[in-house]
Amino acid sequence: MKTIHSTLALLAIALASFSTTRAQDPLPSWNEGAAKSSIIAFVATVAAEGSPDFVPPAQRIATFDNDGTLWCEQPMYFQLLFAIHRVGVLAPQHPEWKDKEPFASLLRGDVKAALAGGEKALMEIVAVTHSGMTTEEFDKTVKDWVATAEHPLTKRPLLEMVYQPMIELLGYLRAHGFKTFIVSGGGIEFMRPWTEQVYGIPPEQVVGSSGKLKWEMVDGKPTLMKLPAIDFIDDKQGKPVGIQKHIGRRPIAAFGNSDGDLQMLQWTAAGPGTRFCLYVHHTDAEREFAYDRNSHIGQLDKGLDEAAAKGWTVVDMKNDWKTIFPPPR
Amino acid sequence: MKTIHSTLALLAIALASFSTTRAQDPLPSWNEGAAKSSIIAFVATVAAEGSPDFVPPAQRIATFDNDGTLWCEQPMYFQLLFAIHRVGVLAPQHPEWKDKEPFASLLRGDVKAALAGGEKALMEIVAVTHSGMTTEEFDKTVKDWVATAEHPLTKRPLLEMVYQPMIELLGYLRAHGFKTFIVSGGGIEFMRPWTEQVYGIPPEQVVGSSGKLKWEMVDGKPTLMKLPAIDFIDDKQGKPVGIQKHIGRRPIAAFGNSDGDLQMLQWTAAGPGTRFCLYVHHTDAEREFAYDRNSHIGQLDKGLDEAAAKGWTVVDMKNDWKTIFPPPR
Repeated sequence: MKTIHSTLALLAIALASFSTTRAQDPLPSWNEGAAKSSIIAFVATVAAEGSPDFVPPAQRIATFDNDGTLWCEQPMYFQLLFAIHRVGVLAPQHPEWKDKEPFASLLRGDVKAALAGGEKALMEIVAVTHSGMTTEEFDKTVKDWVATAEHPLTKRPLLEMVYQPMIELLGYLRAHGFKTFIVSGGGIEFMRPWTEQVYGIPPEQVVGSSGKLKWEMVDGKPTLMKLPAIDFIDDKQGKPVGIQKHIGRRPIAAFGNSDGDLQMLQWTAAGPGTRFCLYVHHTDAEREFAYDRNSHIGQLDKGLDEAAAKGWTVVDMKNDWKTIFPPPR
Repeated sequence: MKTIHSTLALLAIALASFSTTRAQDPLPSWNEGAAKSSIIAFVATVAAEGSPDFVPPAQRIATFDNDGTLWCEQPMYFQLLFAIHRVGVLAPQHPEWKDKEPFASLLRGDVKAALAGGEKALMEIVAVTHSGMTTEEFDKTVKDWVATAEHPLTKRPLLEMVYQPMIELLGYLRAHGFKTFIVSGGGIEFMRPWTEQVYGIPPEQVVGSSGKLKWEMVDGKPTLMKLPAIDFIDDKQGKPVGIQKHIGRRPIAAFGNSDGDLQMLQWTAAGPGTRFCLYVHHTDAEREFAYDRNSHIGQLDKGLDEAAAKGWTVVDMKNDWKTIFPPPR
């Protein structure tokens, strides 16, 4: 990987002088600084005809983690909020849950106690809320839920808990011929119902964790049933695997916020030519949340070290972003 | 599914009068007739602004089988030719193969005897030729092979054994805002190295069967190793599953040639609004091959019955196609 900081400093400075004019600024929610300049310099390097590091549009693949990179992941993953909600909705059909963990704790509102059962408890919650229905039924359930779901602390609609600077970045890359993908540890079927509306990313450009599916003819009508079995975990080492399975070529730019994204960034950086890797560092306890090396959600420890060693861009949310969330609709 | 034959006959006739002018004909290798008219009428129905059955471009997903639908599959799947070639290349490193089936028969040139071992024999051949290397090494191996591989009977380059009318159809659909995907029982990593060049279909729009992958750091360099284990079989019931996993929405048009494509066509047809399903029927023993209900490659039996019952388009290759293959380069 060539470090664009060194080879393109001049170009970055030249371009930064353009982008100071607010009206022309493609990234208005980004403060001027090293992070913003590095993005603009990278795009100029790969997308400008005649550039020695020009990359044809078809190869301009950019992959984005979702939780903590495109939208908020605190105080818990939003998909877990969905699962908890579903347990409540389904509880009347399951009187036995009152005496059975992890459901009993969940129904008492004690998420922490419910999750004390670790991965086994989590898988039980996922199984009852994410399987046993068709893909179309699940799609509708998610759409109905996100239409009204609110963040537990800010009380804002969940779909407004997305990072405005990253929305601008997605659009900026697409305007320069990039194809933008989500590559998330979250459930692929949980994200697809709303990513097009919120991020401009269509279902076929969403990569995520998934359960097994089963084709069934029901009364002469073909259906795909969601089974209570994990098919693929798109996290850590799974991210480059998911990229290869779904996209079939290596990204030239990758964006994450945690150690779960490290292998995706390493895989991206290890390709030939100019590459761009960026970590979103959650440093703003006032406007969002501040967490990194010791967080049990979105831990960023090894990734911070590797970013420093490799010269990757690290976004300091507090100082690099003018605004965090979009204005209320 | 609305039958476009009945509701759009007039429109089809109107459009057909346009397409008789060769210079304006988007499908010049198709003879005038019911098959060609049905395609043009379908596209007019879903792509024309103001049409009551208008489909927004983002939802214009079209899926194509590969073997026997986009390129020839006789006298054996071309991927099997590749595997046999690789066994020959690798044989010097495996002296034990001289006495071990299915390799002994393959090395004597007796493919039939080698495959007498059924699925187990086939899997052994696939394992030694499609795993034990990185995804990048495999990509290069396939590219090198297809660059010079010839059809065993016609002696034409394999990449010219594609169906010219289907190449035109892919372009015609894309010109009308469709996103074209391959959904094949063939190996995803075997197709991706050449589908963009030959069909204009990029790697991320190829769905196929796949083996498991493993992330490994080798001397500080990240690699994805191809393991000798099947991950997913994208055939029959697997095709709608593969479509859901990769694309995440239901196609509005699907194209196949065998019973292995039947579930994909059923899944496509069962969605709301106007749908289009097409079978390529191999009826031309002179210019290509003639086979259907009793073929062990590309068997088309249940599919023919269902196409007749549902009013799907069936292409009679002998009568519907002016030419089968593109002119030699």
